[in-house]
Amino acid sequence: MRFVDTIEKKADGGKLSGEEIQEMISGYVSGEIPDYQMSAMMMAVLQRGMDAEEATALTMAMMNSGDVVDLSDLPGVKVDKHSTGGVGDTTTLVIAPLVAACGGTVAKMSGRGLGHTGGTLDKLESVPGTCIEQPLERFKEIVRENGVAVVGQTGNLVPADKKMYALRDVTATVRSIPLIASSIMSKKLASGADAIVLDVKTGTGAFMRTKEEAFELAKLMCRIGRLAGRQVRAVVTDMNQPLGMSVGNALEVQEAVELLSGKIPEDDPLYMVCMLLGSQMLQMAGLAADDDEAEKMLKAHIDDGSGLGKLQKMFELLGGDASFVTEEGMKKLTAVRRTMDVTADQSGFVSHMNAEEIGTAAQMLGAGRAKKEDSVDPAVGLVMKVRCGYRVRKGDPLCTLYINDEKRVDEAAGLLRRAIRITPEPDEVEPMVYGLVTAD
Amino acid sequence: MRFVDTIEKKADGGKLSGEEIQEMISGYVSGEIPDYQMSAMMMAVLQRGMDAEEATALTMAMMNSGDVVDLSDLPGVKVDKHSTGGVGDTTTLVIAPLVAACGGTVAKMSGRGLGHTGGTLDKLESVPGTCIEQPLERFKEIVRENGVAVVGQTGNLVPADKKMYALRDVTATVRSIPLIASSIMSKKLASGADAIVLDVKTGTGAFMRTKEEAFELAKLMCRIGRLAGRQVRAVVTDMNQPLGMSVGNALEVQEAVELLSGKIPEDDPLYMVCMLLGSQMLQMAGLAADDDEAEKMLKAHIDDGSGLGKLQKMFELLGGDASFVTEEGMKKLTAVRRTMDVTADQSGFVSHMNAEEIGTAAQMLGAGRAKKEDSVDPAVGLVMKVRCGYRVRKGDPLCTLYINDEKRVDEAAGLLRRAIRITPEPDEVEPMVYGLVTAD
Repeated sequence: MRFVDTIEKKADGGKLSGEEIQEMISGYVSGEIPDYQMSAMMMAVLQRGMDAEEATALTMAMMNSGDVVDLSDLPGVKVDKHSTGGVGDTTTLVIAPLVAACGGTVAKMSGRGLGHTGGTLDKLESVPGTCIEQPLERFKEIVRENGVAVVGQTGNLVPADKKMYALRDVTATVRSIPLIASSIMSKKLASGADAIVLDVKTGTGAFMRTKEEAFELAKLMCRIGRLAGRQVRAVVTDMNQPLGMSVGNALEVQEAVELLSGKIPEDDPLYMVCMLLGSQMLQMAGLAADDDEAEKMLKAHIDDGSGLGKLQKMFELLGGDASFVTEEGMKKLTAVRRTMDVTADQSGFVSHMNAEEIGTAAQMLGAGRAKKEDSVDPAVGLVMKVRCGYRVRKGDPLCTLYINDEKRVDEAAGLLRRAIRITPEPDEVEPMVYGLVTAD
Repeated sequence: MRFVDTIEKKADGGKLSGEEIQEMISGYVSGEIPDYQMSAMMMAVLQRGMDAEEATALTMAMMNSGDVVDLSDLPGVKVDKHSTGGVGDTTTLVIAPLVAACGGTVAKMSGRGLGHTGGTLDKLESVPGTCIEQPLERFKEIVRENGVAVVGQTGNLVPADKKMYALRDVTATVRSIPLIASSIMSKKLASGADAIVLDVKTGTGAFMRTKEEAFELAKLMCRIGRLAGRQVRAVVTDMNQPLGMSVGNALEVQEAVELLSGKIPEDDPLYMVCMLLGSQMLQMAGLAADDDEAEKMLKAHIDDGSGLGKLQKMFELLGGDASFVTEEGMKKLTAVRRTMDVTADQSGFVSHMNAEEIGTAAQMLGAGRAKKEDSVDPAVGLVMKVRCGYRVRKGDPLCTLYINDEKRVDEAAGLLRRAIRITPEPDEVEPMVYGLVTAD
């Protein structure tokens, strides 16, 4: 079959066969199918969709375009987590070590941040000496010794995704739910985990702007997981305001350390989402029977300090200076030229936050990248002092900026003042968690 | 605005502004917008459509991508006709000279045939010596002297269409009605006519497979014409069977000569469609008040031989050997190594013809091109002996093949036997003309 006929089939709303999808991916990666045909196909998929079988075939074809990591020689059920990208989301640095402390095996590959969203690799590298590029065997050794390692991608994982994503980015086809699902799932499956919990964000700071889209994406990824023979569960969580109070690399490591030290209350959103994701991971790993048992285990390993111990050990094994877990070490990590508060210009209630704008403000200070090639300043960023629903008086601090470079400080402060809306009366506050999704 | 944002607007079903469309076409022609972005846009247009204002802006932007012919120094209303491509359609060679004989001015640029459809230029060139490439000034001189000239495109008309069509062909976006409409109308408007009659074909041999699509295309082209300040009318006609009895270049010239010589009856489909199109042209040119008057004029100029005279004179002015209008001259033109009848393999009624397959059979004999670069044999083709509704006995000839090259004769004959279906009972015969469309 000529590829133009496959495009026409999808343009007419038809269902592509596994063979057609396989030929599409191998042809595109080999260069036989040119960009201009692939972009027409991606637009047809955006408009006409794909069902779970097509999306699974796409995921598998993309996965098989490169290396596939074999973790089968590691003990137990290998559990992984993935978030669709948010602001102030440091859950990986909390639950990866915490689940390991509970007896789980977490061999995780992470990515970098882009635009207003942060990335775990940048947070890891905010601790001096940490090397996130590890050979596969060394990565496995660390997991064997410590139960957990979070590193950058090893080998040549899913080259099809890199090529397709670059094309989608310039052809307005990024938003296609089956293309997002197969992009995420191909990388997750290629990373070798047996069980995966997905955190699908929705709201102003998230890729999925509506709850409906977020649930659709979550459901499709769970179905792909089941058709591919893996355990997958997803939660849909709120990203209308930053998840944690800190936005910035070292600042988020600090918040993770605080949470693992028992210094963050149980009704805190970051704490709640960590409990939820960790609980799913323990249950899929067969280490806990239900939410109750799982949460008790997680709390116990916060209380006894073993979760923090796993985090510290992981950094050591990656070559990092583990003194950051002490108060003094952390002060060094987050040391900046100066801090500055952005204050409320009127009294009232925080009725709305724009997480995307808050993330962008942190990026302006140097905490994130506008382009892939940009570098980040590990120490800078901001710490929120308020959340939606908080009452403030005029002049109260809304957040504290951590500043090294003065260039865009005024711009960032202005953006934050717009992003944090204060109204005379309180507005309804969205819940942090919208629901749990499984393949059924 | 970045072009990716324009793509996204259309992908979301938005309406593009005239400026956005102008930037798209100039950017694509200059190479600033790459093929992979344009193909995504074309697929978005296929899926989401364009309204008449967008399609007009697209038509005008495409028209202005190259030369625009100025016919204003020619006398009277310049009338043109265009058919969307059919089988056995030699209307141009009949009505262009006939309208000129009635006092009209017909300065027409035509195209070549591709696939199963024929093209007027190939028919012109079947007369030895005819040169269809004429400088613009010579083309106008011929029109001034004779009232009619049909030639190939002069200058660099609508380069945007050439580039866009090549891309659409390999990205399954050929069928988009606004893209078809703007492709046709940009070329018609660039050719400089004041008034245009369009013959939109529908059926097995036509690009528009359903009547609904054909009317939609016809309506849109009329609206574009009005928004662009030209007179445009369209007729939707049947292409389930060949329009004339002959399919092949010299054979179709012969049929045109027969019609202009009064040898074809008034209930013949080719005759009827010529009357319909010619009548619209005369009315738009202000030469006739209504259908009745127009048809009387057309018939009178068949009867007095002046239509045929205009055809003969046109060929002479293009350098052709005009002896083809004599019986002997025509015999020379259609001389082949041998002829062969395809006969009915059962008695009954011709209930269905597949015009595409009949056109393809003629192409196999050498009358048409599979690829643009192929050459054609002017003498070969086929002459139908039956039409839908005809009663036949087993062994009766269905059509006569005109053969020079034996290579694909069996294949062509087999295809014709399948294309002409005979059933014991007569089937309902579709009308030749489905309706007249105007911009209102």
